[in-house]
Amino acid sequence: MSAGKLIGVGVGPGDPELVTLKAMRTLAAADTIAHFAKAGWPSHSRAIAAQYLREGVIELPLHYPVTTELPTCSAGYRDAIAGFYDDAAQKIAAHLDAGRVVAVICEGDPLFYGSYMHLHARLAPRFAAEIVAGVTGMSGCWSAAGTPIAQGNDVFTVLPATLPEAELTRRLADADAAVVMKVGRHLPKLRRALDRSGRLHRAIYVERGTMTDAKMIPLAAKPDDEAPYFAVVLVPGWEKRP
Amino acid sequence: MSAGKLIGVGVGPGDPELVTLKAMRTLAAADTIAHFAKAGWPSHSRAIAAQYLREGVIELPLHYPVTTELPTCSAGYRDAIAGFYDDAAQKIAAHLDAGRVVAVICEGDPLFYGSYMHLHARLAPRFAAEIVAGVTGMSGCWSAAGTPIAQGNDVFTVLPATLPEAELTRRLADADAAVVMKVGRHLPKLRRALDRSGRLHRAIYVERGTMTDAKMIPLAAKPDDEAPYFAVVLVPGWEKRP
Repeated sequence: MSAGKLIGVGVGPGDPELVTLKAMRTLAAADTIAHFAKAGWPSHSRAIAAQYLREGVIELPLHYPVTTELPTCSAGYRDAIAGFYDDAAQKIAAHLDAGRVVAVICEGDPLFYGSYMHLHARLAPRFAAEIVAGVTGMSGCWSAAGTPIAQGNDVFTVLPATLPEAELTRRLADADAAVVMKVGRHLPKLRRALDRSGRLHRAIYVERGTMTDAKMIPLAAKPDDEAPYFAVVLVPGWEKRP
Repeated sequence: MSAGKLIGVGVGPGDPELVTLKAMRTLAAADTIAHFAKAGWPSHSRAIAAQYLREGVIELPLHYPVTTELPTCSAGYRDAIAGFYDDAAQKIAAHLDAGRVVAVICEGDPLFYGSYMHLHARLAPRFAAEIVAGVTGMSGCWSAAGTPIAQGNDVFTVLPATLPEAELTRRLADADAAVVMKVGRHLPKLRRALDRSGRLHRAIYVERGTMTDAKMIPLAAKPDDEAPYFAVVLVPGWEKRP
């Protein structure tokens, strides 16, 4: 019986062709595959990796008890989600204890704003763990848009749109280039912050950035403030470009 | 004769296994392959992609006239490098005009602090252009270190170590998570800035992050201030991790 091993496998932003060779081989060789999904919905990460999974591999779906129903700052959300990660880690530990290699499929890159990190923090101190880096969602977005994002000595920042308006404004003005995540219902506030920081004319709104039905337009040209939670806004830097 | 097309192909941080399927197929199908290198040195990006190149493919090596011999803010550097990119774009344009598909091999991700962007800015207005996103060098570093870098509503920042000490200090204190690039001779200054911003205890020094001879240690434990130009320092966020 081989020693169990946990592997966080980045499968990139959405296009199955943007999976690395290492991810493909790691998924094909794993004993157990784990993937996150909203309860009642198919897993996005599993869909990206589906064609690379071994027939008959053990699958361990991990269903979030809540996603956007409760504010993430509420005690209800925090308790539900912490209990969920504890439970998920325990389920995976059972496979690791049985000597299995468990690959957790991660959209984008495993250690960059991903759910996998909650499992890693709980399990890496007890079991062998490895990371397979992946193409991030934001790389997928600016590549699909064909927009150079940062160059030379640019300061580049990733901001959640959940920040208060004054802080968003200050941070946008303070960076050469930025990516704003979790746009959703925060778009009217973000639009004002971009305007006040002098960045609105550069901002590009991206929805489903790496899907075949991606939507990309200059934010200034977007006629409404409707946006899904996972929409992002790119603020390209490299102002001195030729 | 097919219409020419320019493709910026990200080949990831260094491990040939971290190349995506799309990059592998794009490289194998290209008519012409271009790659950057320091004059007199083998190209790093070509070495990553070597096993995926078609036999007999036309190769267009692009040799930087200067790299670190002149300060990047000097007129001499700026003139030499602008002339070099103009000339490189012209050479590639000749292949595109002849109806060839030209793939430019890019370390990391093509539109994130890469030389390719200088070609893209000059050629994308005149020719069809496409980007194949890649795993960034920084993803390669934090994955090799097994260090979650940013989570939830963390503000994440990429900073060049070339910034003045006071600005480095302020920006490090203002971010939850950071990656500092171009460390080299700036390490003593960076160490002071990390100390003054209360981040030194979290900082991880990484040299040749995704090579088999990678060197990673807590910066506080590094006994000297020797560092190559491409060394990076990771400042992991996610302070509230379980």
